[in-house]
Amino acid sequence: MQINPERLIGDLRELAGFGQYKTGVNRPAFSAADMAAREWLRGKMAAAGLTAVIDGVGNVYGRMDGATKAVLIGSHSDTVPFGGWLDGSLGVIYALEIARCVGESGAAPIGVDAISFQDEEGTYLSFLGSRTFCGDDLAADIAAARNKDDEALAPLIANAGLTQKEPARLDPGRHVAYLEAHIEQGPRLEHAGRQIGVVSAIVGIKTFRVIFRGEANHAGTTPMDMRHDAGAAALAFGAALAEIVPRHGGADTVWNVGKATFEPGAANVVPAIAELFVQIRDASPAVLAELARVIGEAARAHAARCRVEVEIMVLADTPPAAMNATLAGLIARAAGERGASTMSLPSGAGHDAMILAPRLPAAMMFVPSIGGRSHHVSEDTREDDIVVGAQVFLRAVELLMSGL
Amino acid sequence: MQINPERLIGDLRELAGFGQYKTGVNRPAFSAADMAAREWLRGKMAAAGLTAVIDGVGNVYGRMDGATKAVLIGSHSDTVPFGGWLDGSLGVIYALEIARCVGESGAAPIGVDAISFQDEEGTYLSFLGSRTFCGDDLAADIAAARNKDDEALAPLIANAGLTQKEPARLDPGRHVAYLEAHIEQGPRLEHAGRQIGVVSAIVGIKTFRVIFRGEANHAGTTPMDMRHDAGAAALAFGAALAEIVPRHGGADTVWNVGKATFEPGAANVVPAIAELFVQIRDASPAVLAELARVIGEAARAHAARCRVEVEIMVLADTPPAAMNATLAGLIARAAGERGASTMSLPSGAGHDAMILAPRLPAAMMFVPSIGGRSHHVSEDTREDDIVVGAQVFLRAVELLMSGL
Repeated sequence: MQINPERLIGDLRELAGFGQYKTGVNRPAFSAADMAAREWLRGKMAAAGLTAVIDGVGNVYGRMDGATKAVLIGSHSDTVPFGGWLDGSLGVIYALEIARCVGESGAAPIGVDAISFQDEEGTYLSFLGSRTFCGDDLAADIAAARNKDDEALAPLIANAGLTQKEPARLDPGRHVAYLEAHIEQGPRLEHAGRQIGVVSAIVGIKTFRVIFRGEANHAGTTPMDMRHDAGAAALAFGAALAEIVPRHGGADTVWNVGKATFEPGAANVVPAIAELFVQIRDASPAVLAELARVIGEAARAHAARCRVEVEIMVLADTPPAAMNATLAGLIARAAGERGASTMSLPSGAGHDAMILAPRLPAAMMFVPSIGGRSHHVSEDTREDDIVVGAQVFLRAVELLMSGL
Repeated sequence: MQINPERLIGDLRELAGFGQYKTGVNRPAFSAADMAAREWLRGKMAAAGLTAVIDGVGNVYGRMDGATKAVLIGSHSDTVPFGGWLDGSLGVIYALEIARCVGESGAAPIGVDAISFQDEEGTYLSFLGSRTFCGDDLAADIAAARNKDDEALAPLIANAGLTQKEPARLDPGRHVAYLEAHIEQGPRLEHAGRQIGVVSAIVGIKTFRVIFRGEANHAGTTPMDMRHDAGAAALAFGAALAEIVPRHGGADTVWNVGKATFEPGAANVVPAIAELFVQIRDASPAVLAELARVIGEAARAHAARCRVEVEIMVLADTPPAAMNATLAGLIARAAGERGASTMSLPSGAGHDAMILAPRLPAAMMFVPSIGGRSHHVSEDTREDDIVVGAQVFLRAVELLMSGL
């Protein structure tokens, strides 16, 4: 089987027209542009011969009814505000194109089901679509969910006429695997000059809010050795991470101090409160646990040295999700057959595949992001790379089907 | 001569009634409470035999007309919002009480002029009163001055009926010295168990806004060695100050990082911009200049290491003001005669005396602050210490007069 490059690129461009903003797309979950794009996608799936629905939470699910078993392929078509045109849309249109190719090749015992999950980006509720698809009971979360502008999710579901619709569900008797393609969102493939990223795992993420509490004092009249300087503790702790994390982390561990706030926040007042938002990511639960331990130790040591208190709040703790090695191997083999260069890498960002992975064999494939950019209107991938990615992904599906 | 302790404490308590807030005072410059207090003070000065006016910017100036030369004594009676009851009011009432004592002792060739400067705290314009008194042309600054609530200063001066009034002026033919008493606003006297602080100098203050500019990137997908992490540069630089400033500063150098801001400020985004507000204080211009140099060097080094840009803005640069050594010696001698323990220390905070010091011999005396607290309703000084301070200050004025 061969994908149709014109059709593939044409559909990607057409989808990018929904919510187009400059060279990117502004299509947050449940926006008018998002729902219009989902209706368009449902029509495309139907035209491809799938039985296609928009389900009770906005997932677009196309089912190849003639098959008794199916490879589930998809990603998400919602975007961050003013994001890029590819991101999850790439994986959604790959799924559509592969379903078309498989459909055109004639009936097979194993088919392809295509899906675009809703709100992967967490405009209202992160992974709403894939979690619902996997059977999580999110009724209470949905009732409480609001976006950054404090707009509620529930009325949007009702207004979209979805309330009475059944959610689409993972069917363990039918779905043999989940495959997701996505842009890399980072510079590693481009930097290494590789066309295909075979994802080894989706990293786990721990996010900490580290709050140092001291005493506000006059920054001129209070001797240095009599201060309880929350800011000094935060600075020393934050700087120490650059030494601690590499020493205790793995080769692919990444971390970030993304936010810092000092209170009362005046040049002439010793900070009473200083807080840092610290995030660490790694594919190994053991590495993450060890890092959490040493980071806590460092925070307490610097707090003690500066005569302040420290509190460490865990804001989020997503476990790593290993990708299925057999499926990853098929992607690498498919790339080899298509003459595409590959590298194995963890995904530093979360994806719907990490929700699916505990339930059925799952794998992900990346294509290069130009300059590593994503979640921005400048996000892009070379058209050659988009086409090669689709050919490799289709070949991997063929290999999977033939091996079952 | 002896001060009258009941009268002194009574006047301090009465003045604290203007703008009373809990155990402190809320009497910002030009507030109704401040202007009422100034009118009260003018009356008190007049009752003490001084020719007293509220001048064109709100200074309360009482002149001992019978004398051809005068020691100028004073401080300020405006407060920070919700501040303490003593602060500059202590020095103002000391001046009133000493003028009364000198007046009661009979005519002298050298008299006492008392003053309460306006807006020392910078509610609208820092040191408005003392700068005007010293002849600075502040017309443009006054026209532009606004408080934190964006209320203009000029209409307040007009509404208070001050527009047509002459400013009081330093008179080089008359004023032989400026003496100011103030609470310490820090814990050093209390900590050392001393009653009188003889101020050696008012420190110079340099305030820097250090802005690191990098690139916002996904904190999961961007490898550590490909980031342009403004936050990491700021943390490393901020932490390094704790080593750099003591190594290049003097024994009394103090510094502070009072504010930190990261942008865009999300746990999962590498900061594009990170800024710190850094303040250093020392009595030596050479030490301040050297610190500015090494701090700039460190900022540039950490920026380069993190592959980001750095800009250092000088927000404020107040030179140190040395106190007159002869006058300081008189305060120490007066304390010795009164049996009060002393220590020499720099003032870490700014005072009107630093505006006067370049124009005539000036000196300052501190009394202890309980727990080092100031600019807060809990600010206080033991009544014994207030009385001893006034006795020492009066004796210093006597020694000064007799030596001229």
